[in-house]
Amino acid sequence: MTHFRPVALHHASRLVNHGPTVLVTSAAGGRRNVMAAAWSMPVEFTPPRIAVVIDKKTFTRELVAASGAFGLCIPGAALRDVTFTVGSTSGRDVDKFARFGIASQAGPELGMPVIEEGCSAWLECRLIPEPHAEEAYDTCFGEVLSAAADSRIFDTGRWSFRDDNRDLHTIHHLGAGNFVTAGNGIQARMLPGD
Amino acid sequence: MTHFRPVALHHASRLVNHGPTVLVTSAAGGRRNVMAAAWSMPVEFTPPRIAVVIDKKTFTRELVAASGAFGLCIPGAALRDVTFTVGSTSGRDVDKFARFGIASQAGPELGMPVIEEGCSAWLECRLIPEPHAEEAYDTCFGEVLSAAADSRIFDTGRWSFRDDNRDLHTIHHLGAGNFVTAGNGIQARMLPGD
Repeated sequence: MTHFRPVALHHASRLVNHGPTVLVTSAAGGRRNVMAAAWSMPVEFTPPRIAVVIDKKTFTRELVAASGAFGLCIPGAALRDVTFTVGSTSGRDVDKFARFGIASQAGPELGMPVIEEGCSAWLECRLIPEPHAEEAYDTCFGEVLSAAADSRIFDTGRWSFRDDNRDLHTIHHLGAGNFVTAGNGIQARMLPGD
Repeated sequence: MTHFRPVALHHASRLVNHGPTVLVTSAAGGRRNVMAAAWSMPVEFTPPRIAVVIDKKTFTRELVAASGAFGLCIPGAALRDVTFTVGSTSGRDVDKFARFGIASQAGPELGMPVIEEGCSAWLECRLIPEPHAEEAYDTCFGEVLSAAADSRIFDTGRWSFRDDNRDLHTIHHLGAGNFVTAGNGIQARMLPGD
Protein backbone atom coordinates (compact mmCIF):
# COMPACT_ATOMS: atom_id res chain seq x y z
CA MET A 1 0.00 0.00 0.00
CA THR A 2 1.36 3.37 -0.92
CA HIS A 3 1.77 6.04 1.70
CA PHE A 4 1.99 8.75 -0.95
CA ARG A 5 -0.55 11.54 -0.82
CA PRO A 6 -0.89 14.61 -3.06
CA VAL A 7 0.94 17.74 -1.92
CA ALA A 8 -0.86 21.06 -2.36
CA LEU A 9 0.98 23.09 -4.98
CA HIS A 10 1.48 26.03 -2.62
CA HIS A 11 3.47 23.65 -0.40
CA ALA A 12 5.57 22.21 -3.23
CA SER A 13 8.58 24.47 -2.61
CA ARG A 14 8.93 23.03 0.89
CA LEU A 15 9.84 19.66 -0.57
CA VAL A 16 13.18 21.04 -1.79
CA ASN A 17 13.56 24.10 0.46
CA HIS A 18 16.25 22.47 2.62
CA GLY A 19 18.53 21.48 -0.25
CA PRO A 20 18.18 17.73 -0.70
CA THR A 21 19.86 15.90 -3.54
CA VAL A 22 17.20 14.90 -6.07
CA LEU A 23 16.71 12.41 -8.86
CA VAL A 24 15.82 14.05 -12.17
CA THR A 25 13.59 11.86 -14.32
CA SER A 26 12.75 12.33 -17.97
CA ALA A 27 10.99 10.59 -20.84
CA ALA A 28 10.48 11.23 -24.54
CA GLY A 29 10.06 9.20 -27.72
CA GLY A 30 9.88 5.87 -25.92
CA ARG A 31 13.10 6.46 -23.95
CA ARG A 32 13.39 7.37 -20.29
CA ASN A 33 16.15 8.32 -17.89
CA VAL A 34 17.04 9.08 -14.31
CA MET A 35 20.06 11.00 -12.99
CA ALA A 36 21.05 12.62 -9.70
CA ALA A 37 21.31 16.36 -9.16
CA ALA A 38 22.66 18.05 -6.05
CA TRP A 39 22.02 21.50 -7.52
CA SER A 40 18.39 22.55 -7.37
CA MET A 41 16.36 25.17 -5.55
CA PRO A 42 12.90 26.72 -5.48
CA VAL A 43 12.68 30.13 -7.11
CA GLU A 44 9.01 31.01 -6.43
CA PHE A 45 6.29 29.90 -4.03
CA THR A 46 3.23 30.65 -6.19
CA PRO A 47 3.17 29.57 -8.90
CA PRO A 48 5.60 26.95 -7.62
CA ARG A 49 8.76 27.18 -9.67
CA ILE A 50 12.14 25.57 -9.27
CA ALA A 51 15.56 25.68 -10.92
CA VAL A 52 17.78 22.66 -11.44
CA VAL A 53 21.21 22.37 -13.01
CA ILE A 54 21.37 19.68 -15.70
CA ASP A 55 24.57 19.48 -17.69
CA LYS A 56 23.99 20.10 -21.38
CA LYS A 57 26.03 17.01 -22.27
CA THR A 58 23.65 14.66 -20.49
CA PHE A 59 21.04 12.42 -22.08
CA THR A 60 18.55 13.89 -19.61
CA ARG A 61 18.90 17.31 -21.23
CA GLU A 62 18.02 15.81 -24.61
CA LEU A 63 14.90 14.17 -23.23
CA VAL A 64 13.85 17.28 -21.30
CA ALA A 65 14.25 19.42 -24.41
CA ALA A 66 12.19 16.94 -26.42
CA SER A 67 9.33 16.56 -23.93
CA GLY A 68 9.37 19.99 -22.28
CA ALA A 69 9.04 18.35 -18.88
CA PHE A 70 10.95 16.60 -16.10
CA GLY A 71 10.35 14.95 -12.78
CA LEU A 72 12.14 15.52 -9.48
CA CYS A 73 12.11 12.66 -7.01
CA ILE A 74 13.57 13.01 -3.53
CA PRO A 75 15.49 9.91 -2.51
CA GLY A 76 15.52 8.72 1.06
CA ALA A 77 18.68 7.56 2.82
CA ALA A 78 18.02 3.97 1.81
CA LEU A 79 18.46 5.00 -1.84
CA ARG A 80 21.90 6.54 -1.38
CA ASP A 81 23.68 3.89 -3.44
CA VAL A 82 21.10 4.14 -6.23
CA THR A 83 21.39 7.94 -6.17
CA PHE A 84 25.17 7.89 -6.36
CA THR A 85 25.13 5.25 -9.08
CA VAL A 86 22.59 6.92 -11.39
CA GLY A 87 24.51 10.16 -10.84
CA SER A 88 27.72 8.52 -12.05
CA THR A 89 26.52 6.64 -15.13
CA SER A 90 24.88 7.72 -18.37
CA GLY A 91 21.50 6.51 -19.52
CA ARG A 92 22.25 7.06 -23.17
CA ASP A 93 22.93 3.39 -23.84
CA VAL A 94 21.09 1.73 -20.99
CA ASP A 95 17.75 2.04 -19.20
CA LYS A 96 18.91 2.80 -15.67
CA PHE A 97 15.48 2.05 -14.20
CA ALA A 98 15.72 -1.52 -15.45
CA ARG A 99 19.40 -2.00 -14.78
CA PHE A 100 19.30 -0.82 -11.18
CA GLY A 101 15.82 -2.09 -10.31
CA ILE A 102 14.18 1.29 -9.84
CA ALA A 103 10.37 1.09 -9.77
CA SER A 104 8.55 4.04 -11.33
CA GLN A 105 5.15 5.02 -12.62
CA ALA A 106 3.85 7.74 -14.91
CA GLY A 107 3.05 11.00 -13.13
CA PRO A 108 -0.54 12.23 -13.31
CA GLU A 109 -0.06 15.57 -15.11
CA LEU A 110 2.90 15.15 -17.43
CA GLY A 111 3.56 11.44 -17.55
CA MET A 112 7.07 11.86 -16.20
CA PRO A 113 8.50 8.80 -14.43
CA VAL A 114 7.99 9.27 -10.70
CA ILE A 115 9.61 7.07 -8.07
CA GLU A 116 7.84 6.25 -4.82
CA GLU A 117 9.71 3.19 -3.54
CA GLY A 118 12.54 4.56 -1.41
CA CYS A 119 11.67 8.18 -2.09
CA SER A 120 9.99 10.63 0.25
CA ALA A 121 8.38 12.80 -2.43
CA TRP A 122 8.21 13.66 -6.12
CA LEU A 123 7.28 16.62 -8.30
CA GLU A 124 6.34 16.86 -11.97
CA CYS A 125 7.56 20.01 -13.69
CA ARG A 126 6.85 21.69 -16.99
CA LEU A 127 10.04 23.13 -18.44
CA ILE A 128 9.91 26.91 -18.77
CA PRO A 129 12.13 27.44 -21.81
CA GLU A 130 14.98 29.82 -20.97
CA PRO A 131 17.57 29.26 -23.70
CA HIS A 132 20.16 31.64 -22.27
CA ALA A 133 20.13 30.26 -18.72
CA GLU A 134 20.12 26.72 -20.08
CA GLU A 135 23.10 27.46 -22.31
CA ALA A 136 25.18 29.70 -20.02
CA TYR A 137 24.54 28.04 -16.65
CA ASP A 138 22.97 24.65 -17.46
CA THR A 139 20.11 25.97 -15.36
CA CYS A 140 16.64 24.73 -16.25
CA PHE A 141 13.59 26.45 -14.81
CA GLY A 142 10.37 24.54 -14.31
CA GLU A 143 6.88 25.01 -12.96
CA VAL A 144 5.53 22.33 -10.65
CA LEU A 145 2.25 20.89 -11.93
CA SER A 146 1.82 18.01 -9.50
CA ALA A 147 3.52 16.76 -6.36
CA ALA A 148 3.10 14.02 -3.81
CA ALA A 149 4.88 12.88 -0.67
CA ASP A 150 5.07 9.89 1.64
CA SER A 151 2.78 10.87 4.50
CA ARG A 152 5.04 9.10 6.98
CA ILE A 153 7.61 11.90 6.58
CA PHE A 154 5.82 14.85 4.89
CA ASP A 155 2.24 15.64 5.79
CA THR A 156 0.03 18.75 5.57
CA GLY A 157 2.94 20.78 4.27
CA ARG A 158 5.53 19.79 6.86
CA TRP A 159 8.53 17.51 7.04
CA SER A 160 8.89 15.34 10.10
CA PHE A 161 12.31 13.69 10.41
CA ARG A 162 12.11 11.05 13.14
CA ASP A 163 13.99 7.94 14.20
CA ASP A 164 11.19 5.72 12.92
CA ASN A 165 11.36 7.09 9.35
CA ARG A 166 15.13 7.23 9.06
CA ASP A 167 15.25 5.39 5.73
CA LEU A 168 13.22 8.21 4.17
CA HIS A 169 15.36 11.06 5.50
CA THR A 170 16.58 13.31 2.71
CA ILE A 171 20.22 13.07 1.67
CA HIS A 172 22.48 16.02 0.87
CA HIS A 173 25.55 15.44 -1.25
CA LEU A 174 28.92 16.69 0.00
CA GLY A 175 30.83 15.28 -2.97
CA ALA A 176 32.36 11.98 -4.08
CA GLY A 177 29.50 9.88 -2.75
CA ASN A 178 29.63 11.41 0.72
CA PHE A 179 26.21 12.50 1.90
CA VAL A 180 24.77 13.88 5.09
CA THR A 181 21.22 13.07 6.07
CA ALA A 182 18.79 15.65 7.38
CA GLY A 183 19.46 15.43 11.08
CA ASN A 184 18.09 16.98 14.22
CA GLY A 185 15.24 19.41 13.93
CA ILE A 186 15.82 22.74 15.62
CA GLN A 187 13.35 25.57 16.07
CA ALA A 188 14.64 29.12 15.74
CA ARG A 189 13.08 32.06 17.55
CA MET A 190 12.96 35.73 16.67
CA LEU A 191 15.50 37.87 18.49
CA PRO A 192 14.29 41.09 20.06
CA GLY A 193 15.55 44.30 18.50
CA ASP A 194 17.26 46.67 20.88
CA MET B 1 42.18 33.32 17.22
CA THR B 2 40.41 32.67 13.98
CA HIS B 3 40.15 29.15 12.66
CA PHE B 4 39.28 30.43 9.19
CA ARG B 5 41.51 29.41 6.32
CA PRO B 6 41.23 30.21 2.62
CA VAL B 7 39.30 27.72 0.49
CA ALA B 8 40.69 26.94 -2.96
CA LEU B 9 38.29 28.31 -5.55
CA HIS B 10 37.87 24.91 -7.21
CA HIS B 11 36.48 23.68 -3.89
CA ALA B 12 34.12 26.63 -3.39
CA SER B 13 31.05 24.84 -4.75
CA ARG B 14 31.36 22.23 -2.02
CA LEU B 15 30.55 24.84 0.60
CA VAL B 16 26.96 25.06 -0.64
CA ASN B 17 26.62 21.73 -2.46
CA HIS B 18 24.47 20.19 0.26
CA GLY B 19 21.89 22.97 0.36
CA PRO B 20 22.53 24.94 3.55
CA THR B 21 20.62 28.10 4.32
CA VAL B 22 22.96 31.06 3.84
CA LEU B 23 23.26 34.66 4.94
CA VAL B 24 23.48 37.08 2.01
CA THR B 25 25.56 40.15 2.82
CA SER B 26 25.80 43.36 0.83
CA ALA B 27 27.28 46.84 1.03
CA ALA B 28 27.18 49.99 -1.10
CA GLY B 29 27.30 53.72 -0.58
CA GLY B 30 28.06 53.49 3.11
CA ARG B 31 25.14 51.14 3.83
CA ARG B 32 25.31 47.41 4.50
CA ASN B 33 22.86 44.60 5.00
CA VAL B 34 22.44 40.94 5.84
CA MET B 35 19.49 38.67 5.06
CA ALA B 36 18.84 34.94 5.04
CA ALA B 37 18.32 32.88 1.90
CA ALA B 38 17.30 29.24 1.79
CA TRP B 39 17.37 29.21 -2.00
CA SER B 40 20.87 29.01 -3.43
CA MET B 41 22.88 26.46 -5.40
CA PRO B 42 26.13 26.11 -7.30
CA VAL B 43 25.79 26.19 -11.08
CA GLU B 44 29.41 25.59 -12.14
CA PHE B 45 32.56 24.13 -10.58
CA THR B 46 35.17 26.08 -12.54
CA PRO B 47 34.93 29.00 -12.65
CA PRO B 48 32.98 28.66 -9.41
CA ARG B 49 29.55 30.12 -9.96
CA ILE B 50 26.42 30.09 -7.86
CA ALA B 51 22.82 31.21 -8.10
CA VAL B 52 20.84 32.70 -5.23
CA VAL B 53 17.25 33.92 -5.09
CA ILE B 54 16.97 37.44 -3.68
CA ASP B 55 13.52 39.01 -3.81
CA LYS B 56 13.48 42.18 -5.91
CA LYS B 57 11.64 44.04 -3.16
CA THR B 58 14.49 43.61 -0.67
CA PHE B 59 17.03 46.24 0.35
CA THR B 60 19.70 43.63 -0.37
CA ARG B 61 18.79 43.66 -4.08
CA GLU B 62 19.31 47.44 -4.17
CA LEU B 63 22.73 47.16 -2.59
CA VAL B 64 23.74 44.24 -4.81
CA ALA B 65 22.69 46.13 -7.92
CA ALA B 66 24.67 49.17 -6.76
CA SER B 67 27.89 47.35 -5.87
CA GLY B 68 27.77 44.44 -8.32
CA ALA B 69 28.75 42.07 -5.54
CA PHE B 70 27.45 40.07 -2.59
CA GLY B 71 28.69 37.80 0.15
CA LEU B 72 27.36 34.41 1.19
CA CYS B 73 28.03 33.34 4.76
CA ILE B 74 27.09 29.89 6.02
CA PRO B 75 25.65 30.05 9.52
CA GLY B 76 26.26 27.29 12.03
CA ALA B 77 23.52 25.87 14.22
CA ALA B 78 24.38 28.33 16.98
CA LEU B 79 23.30 31.17 14.68
CA ARG B 80 19.83 29.79 13.96
CA ASP B 81 18.04 32.57 15.81
CA VAL B 82 20.13 35.25 14.11
CA THR B 83 19.47 33.61 10.75
CA PHE B 84 15.74 33.43 11.26
CA THR B 85 15.62 36.99 12.57
CA VAL B 86 17.63 38.64 9.78
CA GLY B 87 15.50 36.62 7.35
CA SER B 88 12.32 38.07 8.82
CA THR B 89 13.24 41.76 9.14
CA SER B 90 14.25 44.42 6.63
CA GLY B 91 17.52 46.28 6.78
CA ARG B 92 16.19 49.31 4.95
CA ASP B 93 15.79 51.35 8.12
CA VAL B 94 18.20 49.63 10.46
CA ASP B 95 21.72 48.19 10.41
CA LYS B 96 21.00 44.57 11.27
CA PHE B 97 24.67 43.88 12.04
CA ALA B 98 24.60 46.45 14.82
CA ARG B 99 21.12 45.68 16.07
CA PHE B 100 21.65 41.96 16.38
CA GLY B 101 25.31 42.01 17.38
CA ILE B 102 26.68 40.36 14.25
CA ALA B 103 30.45 40.74 13.89
CA SER B 104 31.72 41.14 10.34
CA GLN B 105 34.78 42.23 8.44
CA ALA B 106 35.45 43.32 4.88
CA GLY B 107 36.19 40.45 2.51
CA PRO B 108 39.59 40.45 0.79
CA GLU B 109 38.52 40.68 -2.87
CA LEU B 110 35.31 42.65 -2.98
CA GLY B 111 35.00 44.23 0.45
CA MET B 112 31.70 42.49 1.11
CA PRO B 113 30.86 41.99 4.80
CA VAL B 114 31.87 38.47 5.77
CA ILE B 115 30.87 36.83 9.04
CA GLU B 116 33.18 34.39 10.81
CA GLU B 117 31.83 34.30 14.35
CA GLY B 118 29.23 31.53 14.39
CA CYS B 119 29.63 30.75 10.69
CA SER B 120 31.39 27.79 9.14
CA ALA B 121 32.37 29.51 5.88
CA TRP B 122 31.91 32.51 3.62
CA LEU B 123 32.21 33.35 -0.07
CA GLU B 124 32.58 36.68 -1.86
CA CYS B 125 30.81 36.82 -5.22
CA ARG B 126 30.86 39.19 -8.14
CA LEU B 127 27.35 39.61 -9.55
CA ILE B 128 27.08 38.37 -13.13
CA PRO B 129 24.40 40.71 -14.48
CA GLU B 130 21.50 38.68 -15.89
CA PRO B 131 18.61 41.13 -16.08
CA HIS B 132 16.03 38.62 -17.31
CA ALA B 133 16.72 35.96 -14.65
CA GLU B 134 16.86 38.65 -11.97
CA GLU B 135 13.53 40.08 -13.09
CA ALA B 136 11.62 36.90 -13.91
CA TYR B 137 12.89 34.59 -11.17
CA ASP B 138 14.65 36.86 -8.64
CA THR B 139 17.64 34.67 -9.43
CA CYS B 140 21.04 36.33 -9.15
CA PHE B 141 24.10 34.62 -10.62
CA GLY B 142 27.53 35.24 -9.16
CA GLU B 143 31.12 34.18 -9.56
CA VAL B 144 33.04 33.31 -6.43
CA LEU B 145 36.23 35.38 -6.11
CA SER B 146 37.27 34.41 -2.60
CA ALA B 147 36.18 31.90 0.03
CA ALA B 148 37.25 30.76 3.46
CA ALA B 149 36.08 28.20 5.99
CA ASP B 150 36.53 27.29 9.64
CA SER B 151 39.11 24.53 9.53
CA ARG B 152 37.42 22.79 12.45
CA ILE B 153 34.58 21.76 10.13
CA PHE B 154 35.80 22.25 6.53
CA ASP B 155 39.37 21.47 5.64
CA THR B 156 41.22 20.60 2.40
CA GLY B 157 37.97 20.68 0.47
CA ARG B 158 35.91 18.46 2.77
CA TRP B 159 33.20 18.95 5.36
CA SER B 160 33.53 17.02 8.60
CA PHE B 161 30.36 17.07 10.72
CA ARG B 162 31.21 15.71 14.15
CA ASP B 163 29.82 15.85 17.67
CA ASP B 164 32.60 18.18 18.77
CA ASN B 165 31.76 20.84 16.14
CA ARG B 166 27.99 20.69 16.46
CA ASP B 167 27.55 24.45 16.84
CA LEU B 168 29.04 24.91 13.36
CA HIS B 169 26.86 22.33 11.62
CA THR B 170 25.03 23.82 8.66
CA ILE B 171 21.31 24.50 9.00
CA HIS B 172 18.70 23.80 6.34
CA HIS B 173 15.41 25.68 6.47
CA LEU B 174 12.17 23.70 6.34
CA GLY B 175 9.98 26.78 6.72
CA ALA B 176 8.62 29.00 9.52
CA GLY B 177 11.84 28.91 11.52
CA ASN B 178 12.09 25.13 11.51
CA PHE B 179 15.51 23.93 10.48
CA VAL B 180 17.28 20.63 10.27
CA THR B 181 20.99 20.41 10.87
CA ALA B 182 23.32 18.41 8.69
CA GLY B 183 23.25 15.07 10.44
CA ASN B 184 24.91 11.72 10.06
CA GLY B 185 27.44 11.26 7.32
CA ILE B 186 26.80 8.31 5.04
CA GLN B 187 29.01 6.96 2.29
CA ALA B 188 27.35 5.69 -0.86
CA ARG B 189 28.87 2.99 -3.05
CA MET B 190 28.49 2.29 -6.74
CA LEU B 191 26.05 -0.48 -7.58
CA PRO B 192 27.17 -3.11 -10.04
CA GLY B 193 25.35 -3.12 -13.38
CA ASP B 194 23.94 -6.48 -14.34
